[in-house]
Amino acid sequence: MIRRIVEDVLTRGEAYEQLRFLCKKVGPRLSGSAGNARAVQETARMLREVGADTVYLQECMVPKWVRGDKDSAALLIAGKAMPLRVAALGNSEGTGLSGLRAEVIEVRSYDELEALGERVRGKIVFYNYPMNPAYVRTFMAYGDAGKYRGGGASRAAKYGAVGMMVRSLASNPDDYPHTGAMSYDPAYPKIPAMAVSTNDAEKLSRALKEKNGLKLYMRSVCGMQGEVLSHNVVGEIRGSVFPDEVITVGGHLDSWDLAEGAHDDGAGCVQSIEVLRVFRALGVQPKRTIRAVMFQNEENGLRGGLKYAELAAAEGKKHILALESDAGGFSPRGFGVENSDVSRRDNVKAWASLFLPYGIHEFTDGGGGADINPLRKLGTTTVGLSPDSQRYFDIHHSGLDVFEAVSRRELHLGASVMAALIYLTDKYGN
Amino acid sequence: MIRRIVEDVLTRGEAYEQLRFLCKKVGPRLSGSAGNARAVQETARMLREVGADTVYLQECMVPKWVRGDKDSAALLIAGKAMPLRVAALGNSEGTGLSGLRAEVIEVRSYDELEALGERVRGKIVFYNYPMNPAYVRTFMAYGDAGKYRGGGASRAAKYGAVGMMVRSLASNPDDYPHTGAMSYDPAYPKIPAMAVSTNDAEKLSRALKEKNGLKLYMRSVCGMQGEVLSHNVVGEIRGSVFPDEVITVGGHLDSWDLAEGAHDDGAGCVQSIEVLRVFRALGVQPKRTIRAVMFQNEENGLRGGLKYAELAAAEGKKHILALESDAGGFSPRGFGVENSDVSRRDNVKAWASLFLPYGIHEFTDGGGGADINPLRKLGTTTVGLSPDSQRYFDIHHSGLDVFEAVSRRELHLGASVMAALIYLTDKYGN
Repeated sequence: MIRRIVEDVLTRGEAYEQLRFLCKKVGPRLSGSAGNARAVQETARMLREVGADTVYLQECMVPKWVRGDKDSAALLIAGKAMPLRVAALGNSEGTGLSGLRAEVIEVRSYDELEALGERVRGKIVFYNYPMNPAYVRTFMAYGDAGKYRGGGASRAAKYGAVGMMVRSLASNPDDYPHTGAMSYDPAYPKIPAMAVSTNDAEKLSRALKEKNGLKLYMRSVCGMQGEVLSHNVVGEIRGSVFPDEVITVGGHLDSWDLAEGAHDDGAGCVQSIEVLRVFRALGVQPKRTIRAVMFQNEENGLRGGLKYAELAAAEGKKHILALESDAGGFSPRGFGVENSDVSRRDNVKAWASLFLPYGIHEFTDGGGGADINPLRKLGTTTVGLSPDSQRYFDIHHSGLDVFEAVSRRELHLGASVMAALIYLTDKYGN
Repeated sequence: MIRRIVEDVLTRGEAYEQLRFLCKKVGPRLSGSAGNARAVQETARMLREVGADTVYLQECMVPKWVRGDKDSAALLIAGKAMPLRVAALGNSEGTGLSGLRAEVIEVRSYDELEALGERVRGKIVFYNYPMNPAYVRTFMAYGDAGKYRGGGASRAAKYGAVGMMVRSLASNPDDYPHTGAMSYDPAYPKIPAMAVSTNDAEKLSRALKEKNGLKLYMRSVCGMQGEVLSHNVVGEIRGSVFPDEVITVGGHLDSWDLAEGAHDDGAGCVQSIEVLRVFRALGVQPKRTIRAVMFQNEENGLRGGLKYAELAAAEGKKHILALESDAGGFSPRGFGVENSDVSRRDNVKAWASLFLPYGIHEFTDGGGGADINPLRKLGTTTVGLSPDSQRYFDIHHSGLDVFEAVSRRELHLGASVMAALIYLTDKYGN
C-alpha cells in the first residue's frame, strides 16, 4: 500500500498545482492580510474538492502587523547615501516616515554588545553574525544565528540604542533582505529593527572598517495594528472504527509578505491536503480520524497552533499523532519523532525500513513543528518531516520564496511519504 | 580530517564560482565546438590555480556534430501549421533546409511499432513514451524511456519510416525540447530524428487522436562533420609514497549545445577541481597520485573516457580507484561502488558510517560513470556520486541546464564528500 501511495502521488498528485494557485492567485498570506483571509477560503475549497468528509474553520485571534511598503535604509558617507537593501523585521515598530538617522556601530555577537555597553547609546546597533556555512544541517546554523534577529533589538535598547539592523539569516550571499519575527522585551524601548541583505551587510561592514562613526539612515512605517479574527482550516476524514482517535497532518497557512510563501509554508499546506486526496483516490477508509490542518499565524504569533491544541484538549478525543511539514517542499530525507513516552516514539521509528525505498533514511529523535508542539501536553506524538535543508535558507523569508523555487517531484515525494506515515499510524495506532 | 574537509569546502569552496565562469563565460561545450576548446584551456588554468603539481592534456579525436540552429517542426492541420518545440537529436542527420513533410504516426512502444510494421513506410514515427513518474529514482525512468531516443530512428527506418520524433526525456511537463545522443544502425537509412517538448508531445498526441493521417513538417540542418582533435584535461598531485598508484576523480567537460551544461556536467568538473583545492588548502600531501580529470566527449562518443583508460593501461601504473560525478550538482545522497573483486568493493563500503554526518546514507553496489567505466578492465574500483535525482531530468539536456539551476551549498556538499572519499582512498588504499 505504501508503494501504491507513493506511485499515485508521484503520478497524479495535485499538490503542485494547488501550490501554484496559492502562490500565484492568492499570494502572500501574512496574518491579518487580505491574502491570508482568501487563503482560508481557498484551502477550505481544496479540502472539500479532495474529498474531506467535513471542512471547518477554527476561530482564533491573530496579531496584525503591517509593513507599509516604505522600508529603506542608506549608509551616509561623506555626504553621499549608499542605499542598502533592507526589510523591517516582523512585529517591529517603524521609524515613522521621517526616518531615523544615527551613528551605526557593528557587533559580531552579544559578547561584543555587552563589552560596548553604554557606548551604543544613541546609536544603531548592526548585528553582523553570519549563518555558519560549516553546519551541514542548515537549521543548526539558523538556530545559532537566529537569536540576534529575535532578541537583538531589546538587547541593544537596554543600553540606549535607538535602532537595530541585523544581517539577514541567509545561507547564500545575495541581495535579498530576509525578514522574520522579532519580539520586544517590554522592559526597554521598542526600537525599529530591520534586516539587511547579506551582500549589503558585507558592504556596510567594509565601510565601517574604513571609517568609524558613519551614520545610518533607516526608514520604516511598519507596526502592530492590534488583533483580528482569523482561522485554522481543518479538513477531516472521519475514522470508521476509532473516530475519537485523531491523527493530524498540517502546515501553516500564513506566510511572510515579501514573496509567495511557496516553501514556507505553502508546501506543507498542499502536502497535507494531498494526504487526504491520495487516501480518497486509493479508496483508503481510515479507521481513525484524519485531519489535515492549515494552521494560522505560525510566523509571528503561533496563535493557530495554540488554538488547535486548546480545542483538542477541550473536545476530549485522543490525539495520538501529529505530523507537520514546515521545513520546505524539498526532497524528503527523514522524519524527526518526539514523545516523552519513548515506547510510542519507538513505535514510529520501527517503521523506518519501510521508507528506505523512497529515500527516507533518517528517523531521528526530537521532532515536530511549531504548530503541533503544543499538542505534546496531550501526550500526542509529534513528527516533523525533514526535507533536504541545503537550499532552504537561500530563499527563506525573502523575495525568493516563490512557486518557481519548488520542484514538483520533490514536493510530491514529500507528500507521499507523509501520506505513508499517516497511513501506518492509522493502521497500527500509536 | 573528513570534518575539516567538509567544513572547508562549505566555507571556502571555489567550485561554484568556477562553475559560474564555465557556464557564463565559456557556455555550451559540445565536442568540436569553440566553447569546448576554450573549456579545455580554462579548466587547465583552474587546475593550475588550485595547485596541481602538473596539468596536462591528453589528445583524443572526437566526433563533431553540428546542429546548425535551424530546428523547427510543425503539425499541419487543415492547412494550418501548429508549431512544435523541437530539437534535433545529437548525432542525427538533418532534413536539409527544405525540410521533410510526411504523415505522422504515433506509437507508445516498440511493440506498437512492430505491430504496425510496413504501415509506417513513408511516414514519420512519433514515439510518445513518457518517463514513468512512479520511479522514485529518476535514472530508472530515464533508462526505461531512453531506448526510444537512442535507437528509435533505425528501428523505424527498418520499416521504411522517413523521419522520427521522440517525446523528450523529461520528468516534468514543460516547453523545452531535451536533446541527447542517438545512433544509427548502419543497416538502415539514416532518417532525421528530433525530440519534441513534453507539452507539445501531449498536444501532438491529442491532435492525432482527433484526426488520423495528419502531416508533420520537420526541418533540421544538423549533421556530422567528421572528427576533430580534442583533449582530456588532467590535473595531478603526485603521490609522496606511492606515486605509481593513481586515484582518479572526474567529470565530463563536454555538454549539449542547448544551454550551459551546468548540472551536466560542469558540476562534476568543478567538484573534481575542488578536491585538489581542498587538499592543498588543508595541507594534505597525498601518499598516492591524485588526478582530477575533465573527460572529453561523454555525450556523443565517450572518446575521452576510452582514451583515458587506454593511456592508463599503457603507462603501467596501478589505477586503484576512480570516482565520477555525472548525475548533477544536487545534494549528495550516496555513492555507488563497483568492482568484480568484491573485497575491494567492500573496502569502500566499509567507510559508509563515516559519511552519515554529511547526509550520505547509501553505499550501493554497482556504480561508476560512463567516463570511468572503461577503467574496470584494469581492475579499477569505480565509484559514482549519487546526488538527489528528483530535479535532474527536469532540466537535463535542455535549455534549462543553466548555472542558476545549481545550488551553491548542494554543489559544495557534493564536492566535499567526494574529497572525503578520495582522502580515505589515499590514506588506506583500495
